[in-house]
Amino acid sequence: MADWKVIEGGITAPKGFKSSGITAGLKPSNAPDLALIWSETEAIASGVFTTSEVRAACVDYCRQRLQDKASARAILCNAGQANAATGEQGWQDALDSASALAKELNIDANSILLASTGVIGQRIKMDAMLNAIPQLVSELSEDGGEATAKAIVTTDLVTKSIALETMIDGRPVRIGGIAKGSGMIHPNMATMLGFITCDGLVSTQLWQQMLKRAADKSFNQITVDGDTSTNDSLIALANGQSRTPAITSLDENGQKLEAMLTEVCQYLAKAIARDGEGATCLIEVEVTGASTEASARQIAKTIVGSSLVKSAIFGRDPNWGRIAAAAGRAGVPFKQEDLMIKLGDFLLMEKGQPLNFDRTSASNYLKQAAAGEYLKNDTVLISVSVGDGSSSGKAWGCDLSYDYVKINAEYTT
Amino acid sequence: MADWKVIEGGITAPKGFKSSGITAGLKPSNAPDLALIWSETEAIASGVFTTSEVRAACVDYCRQRLQDKASARAILCNAGQANAATGEQGWQDALDSASALAKELNIDANSILLASTGVIGQRIKMDAMLNAIPQLVSELSEDGGEATAKAIVTTDLVTKSIALETMIDGRPVRIGGIAKGSGMIHPNMATMLGFITCDGLVSTQLWQQMLKRAADKSFNQITVDGDTSTNDSLIALANGQSRTPAITSLDENGQKLEAMLTEVCQYLAKAIARDGEGATCLIEVEVTGASTEASARQIAKTIVGSSLVKSAIFGRDPNWGRIAAAAGRAGVPFKQEDLMIKLGDFLLMEKGQPLNFDRTSASNYLKQAAAGEYLKNDTVLISVSVGDGSSSGKAWGCDLSYDYVKINAEYTT
Repeated sequence: MADWKVIEGGITAPKGFKSSGITAGLKPSNAPDLALIWSETEAIASGVFTTSEVRAACVDYCRQRLQDKASARAILCNAGQANAATGEQGWQDALDSASALAKELNIDANSILLASTGVIGQRIKMDAMLNAIPQLVSELSEDGGEATAKAIVTTDLVTKSIALETMIDGRPVRIGGIAKGSGMIHPNMATMLGFITCDGLVSTQLWQQMLKRAADKSFNQITVDGDTSTNDSLIALANGQSRTPAITSLDENGQKLEAMLTEVCQYLAKAIARDGEGATCLIEVEVTGASTEASARQIAKTIVGSSLVKSAIFGRDPNWGRIAAAAGRAGVPFKQEDLMIKLGDFLLMEKGQPLNFDRTSASNYLKQAAAGEYLKNDTVLISVSVGDGSSSGKAWGCDLSYDYVKINAEYTT
Repeated sequence: MADWKVIEGGITAPKGFKSSGITAGLKPSNAPDLALIWSETEAIASGVFTTSEVRAACVDYCRQRLQDKASARAILCNAGQANAATGEQGWQDALDSASALAKELNIDANSILLASTGVIGQRIKMDAMLNAIPQLVSELSEDGGEATAKAIVTTDLVTKSIALETMIDGRPVRIGGIAKGSGMIHPNMATMLGFITCDGLVSTQLWQQMLKRAADKSFNQITVDGDTSTNDSLIALANGQSRTPAITSLDENGQKLEAMLTEVCQYLAKAIARDGEGATCLIEVEVTGASTEASARQIAKTIVGSSLVKSAIFGRDPNWGRIAAAAGRAGVPFKQEDLMIKLGDFLLMEKGQPLNFDRTSASNYLKQAAAGEYLKNDTVLISVSVGDGSSSGKAWGCDLSYDYVKINAEYTT
């Protein structure tokens, strides 16, 4: 099914989308901090948001908008202030932002979605933002993808952007995506944001289902330290400008579109995990042999989220015991005698018992040294099988280093 | 209800109990590694065990024994090898250990309970253990509490032991307890074990209920890094040697006994949290205003388990945002505008909004400095209110320091 190709352009690669990213003066650093994604025509819009009880105004705003009508023309995103824990005034700021942009774009305010990232407890610098909106709109461009990707980051070390193209009934359909997030480097500025554009034509309900499933297999399967933000948002627009037939079911075309959407989300999610604070490598855990995909994902996420597994990998220690213990406490029943654990190609545990890794034998010493050597790769694969079920699942994270503690201990409110 | 007093003697303070702890040669370090707790008469026995799918033989053994009959005469505990992930042979070793001890004590093997702590994947050194059993039995003593507490530890920096006494119908009733565990210092040797003795007379079912509730308010509310062991066990014996009236319901005497049992468990649990790897302080989180005790405990445990909260406290940073974010993702619904957060006596957040902590104002600067200073205490209290519910709950943990990463990264299988 992977019959797509990678193309240039990121978020503006799909037809009928323009975007921009500028410095509005919201961040003290004077780095780009205001982004706009715009569709020529009203696009089907879906969103997946933080489940936290402590939420930013933009999250409540988008939920309400998408409940009223599942379409949109534009997404406005600011970086610098999270507009979370800002009460009634924060809600009013969200409404005012949307109104100002709607006026400038000459569209309905309820066709605008919002996202914020930055310091919790701080209102958006409204004067600066309102002043910048005309420039933001005037700079909308079909080549704006990279500028937009840069304007949504906070403490990220790199921007995260991708575009894929597949053929549906002989015509190209494209999906573009950008994301920000670097785990919880600065936890008050730690939001995970993802924005997806697609020029395919897809029914509202199906697009929402596809996005939810793709998020469950990507953004919801990454963990840097288990903490969840007040602002996490994933928003996907599909504007139908590819002029391909409408996709309304999971037929061949529907499956193709969902597979490509999932790939975009997984690419972005892995990029976030690799950019985790203090990370020296990306960890991918694949669990097979489970009875359901959800339980496989649950075990994979528990392993990749274990501080012990993470610090062992930072220390380049092929420690099967920590992986087995994490699998065991994931809340998914399995028989311990079925447990198999591999690190890359190195079999560490089989049928619930460790292979002999005793370093008193020369061949075992060499085997352990080779497994330790494997851990020096910048991507580490852990494979776990828990039985003879047919379901599998993956999760991604990063190692736990001194720098994680340093960054988080020295951050000041 | 707290009308008990602290007494000497630990696990052997209650009447009719003896214990011992010796060096059997199971640990490479030649430190004490074999412990025995013995009751003169058959005692009511209850247990709470790890919920992990990857379990040590001793855990399955005890579960089966306690299901067959809820009483016991002795608990045998070895340190050095966990006897987990050891398959059929590990199970046989458990049976052989119980048989050998039963013969030496001249009692039924099914009156013996077992616990192990040490390296996962290693069998108990059976020759050394069997050779040591006669000495272990011969050293049983009413003054054995401290020796026993020492013989159950692995990487703990301190032993954990307590005894309390209360009066029931004019006669003393005592509960003693010991525990081991220091979070996951060496995760393959990271078991949490707790053993409780009581000379009160209590019905089987009530004793089990009391122990479960006490564990939920103590051992189940501590977290060092979220990882759970293959060997975690809490076993409580009540032998009735106090000659006080039988307690069969939660009447005044029943409540008194449960309160004292809970206090013993909380004392031991807090001692484990404070002994967490690399810890520089004990963190206590109290959540009030919840609708149920379970939801209050859930929020408290999520906060105390947050890597971000833990590293902020290590850095002496009064970071309300991390505490609010952790509360929000605990999976318990509340209104964010009801959220109140205090650090010691310092109010950080009220009605869902942060108090002005802006350091540009001199008085605020001083307030923040004072809150940072408070964090230098060796016990840090975080109080959170989530509404006007009548239920509350507590959880305990420790800060996350460089030493946690160092210890865990440099540990080698």
